[in-house]
Amino acid sequence: MRNVTVLTGGVGGAKLLAGLCALEPAPNVTAIVNTGDDFRHLGLAISPDIDTLLYVLSGQDHRTQGWGRQNESWSFMAALQSLNGPDWFALGDGDLALHVMRTARLAGGDTLSAITADFARAWGIRARILPMSDDRVATMVETDQGRFEFQDYFVAHRCMPVATAIRFEGAVTARAATDTITAIAGADAILIAPSNPYLSIDPILAVPAIRAALLARKVPVVAISPIVGGEAVKGPTGKLMREFGVPVSAGAVASHYGAILDGMLIDRGDAGAPLDIAHATEDTLMRDLADKKRVAAAALALAERLR
Amino acid sequence: MRNVTVLTGGVGGAKLLAGLCALEPAPNVTAIVNTGDDFRHLGLAISPDIDTLLYVLSGQDHRTQGWGRQNESWSFMAALQSLNGPDWFALGDGDLALHVMRTARLAGGDTLSAITADFARAWGIRARILPMSDDRVATMVETDQGRFEFQDYFVAHRCMPVATAIRFEGAVTARAATDTITAIAGADAILIAPSNPYLSIDPILAVPAIRAALLARKVPVVAISPIVGGEAVKGPTGKLMREFGVPVSAGAVASHYGAILDGMLIDRGDAGAPLDIAHATEDTLMRDLADKKRVAAAALALAERLR
Repeated sequence: MRNVTVLTGGVGGAKLLAGLCALEPAPNVTAIVNTGDDFRHLGLAISPDIDTLLYVLSGQDHRTQGWGRQNESWSFMAALQSLNGPDWFALGDGDLALHVMRTARLAGGDTLSAITADFARAWGIRARILPMSDDRVATMVETDQGRFEFQDYFVAHRCMPVATAIRFEGAVTARAATDTITAIAGADAILIAPSNPYLSIDPILAVPAIRAALLARKVPVVAISPIVGGEAVKGPTGKLMREFGVPVSAGAVASHYGAILDGMLIDRGDAGAPLDIAHATEDTLMRDLADKKRVAAAALALAERLR
Repeated sequence: MRNVTVLTGGVGGAKLLAGLCALEPAPNVTAIVNTGDDFRHLGLAISPDIDTLLYVLSGQDHRTQGWGRQNESWSFMAALQSLNGPDWFALGDGDLALHVMRTARLAGGDTLSAITADFARAWGIRARILPMSDDRVATMVETDQGRFEFQDYFVAHRCMPVATAIRFEGAVTARAATDTITAIAGADAILIAPSNPYLSIDPILAVPAIRAALLARKVPVVAISPIVGGEAVKGPTGKLMREFGVPVSAGAVASHYGAILDGMLIDRGDAGAPLDIAHATEDTLMRDLADKKRVAAAALALAERLR
């Protein structure tokens, strides 16, 4: 496999990408990243999933926290609180550099794609990190307590409201970002990271040109199931599936992806359940680099089998 | 003296204001602050002189550095450098809170006056801190190496180019900020801080309504000389005076202020030189709080004498 393209959200996808990049020989890896979580906070343009990939793939990520930088300091938040500023979203001091630089360059007319590429280059990242779109797509969660912007739902409300629907504002008219379509058309395999299907992958699939390119694929699309032993590894995936009335299972995720999926790598703990799609089993929980490489290799092996 | 209004720039003025606020009984102190140094950096709205006052009057200033916060951390700058961002202007992590909050609120339509008042209130500052104008006034330095924006001249070029003229872009049409005119009209004494006359005080005097209000004053205006023993205490005051062909003396500063000045507090070391204006002498170097109170009291005593 020379060219591998991955649709991804944040943490889980970053682990898979780290595994792919560590394979020998390493394929040319392109990540098409969810930007539905992107938002403005205190005027700053924040791209949580892109930033997670930047930190993980440059080895600067916080090892246990699941977001942000290692060795982060918090003087900004302390000063912000002393000024009665909004403190529901944590902005680390070092992390601010990404947001301030991005905001300034966006204001100067640069695209998120170009800015992200420069950040990745500055940090020596070999994988290509492409936002799904340079146009605004905003994930909105409709719940029993009203309609929330993603970060308001995810951070401020900790996913507590019961979701009834998820919408992607702006998706219908959003153009796929430069190189995303060629990265899909030119891939030898396309992977869907074990990210949240509803909140991280669906926004990417909601960009019309990306969905069309995936439907026109000539190579297999393989998803790594985000379900491990009948429960989501982290985040609100399981909760959302229950709220949407679907079983928390690899099969339900596969059904959700439908026509764009050719195969699925599932966890050994979920091997018993019926699954109407080509699949392979593996211990899919990714704790260390060996896990990440093993899962990445297993996903590529399944894709190879399906070619 | 119940109501004292001070025209001020950064560090020297902040010391005087700290002295005024520490007098017993303390007068009602209003600072009308230079905003000619204000600029945008990385999209952030930075108001150096206002911030110096905020830090000094809330006791958060760096004790020896002359700018910024005590116990500051520098993760942002390190990360910015790793992204190849511009690093000629140092932004401390805690300091960023002021700039980010201010930028966001300005973008939301709030005035610099209102924002500054909220910051001062949040930090328990009793003195009123008023920007000279909520309109943009930009100090431009014309030199033998071309025309520079203030921060470019002051920070990036360390005041090295030879100045030929100083202009205040936007001053002619700038409106005085809310309360500045009533702070002048209602004052029992008006002080001019020992700030740089050309770079810190002249921008304030260049706002037409402020100059007019000062010329219409019914109470004395007393300047504290920025010259101590024939040299400027700090910064480029002495260098500029030499470049403009005037002696580095209290008398030359008094002449420069001209019709808006009634008296001057000069340093004992400058007592020998002729001075064509009412004056008093004092040890004007302000190292500790006792110095600041002594200088503030001496300036008020001179103003009292001139009523």
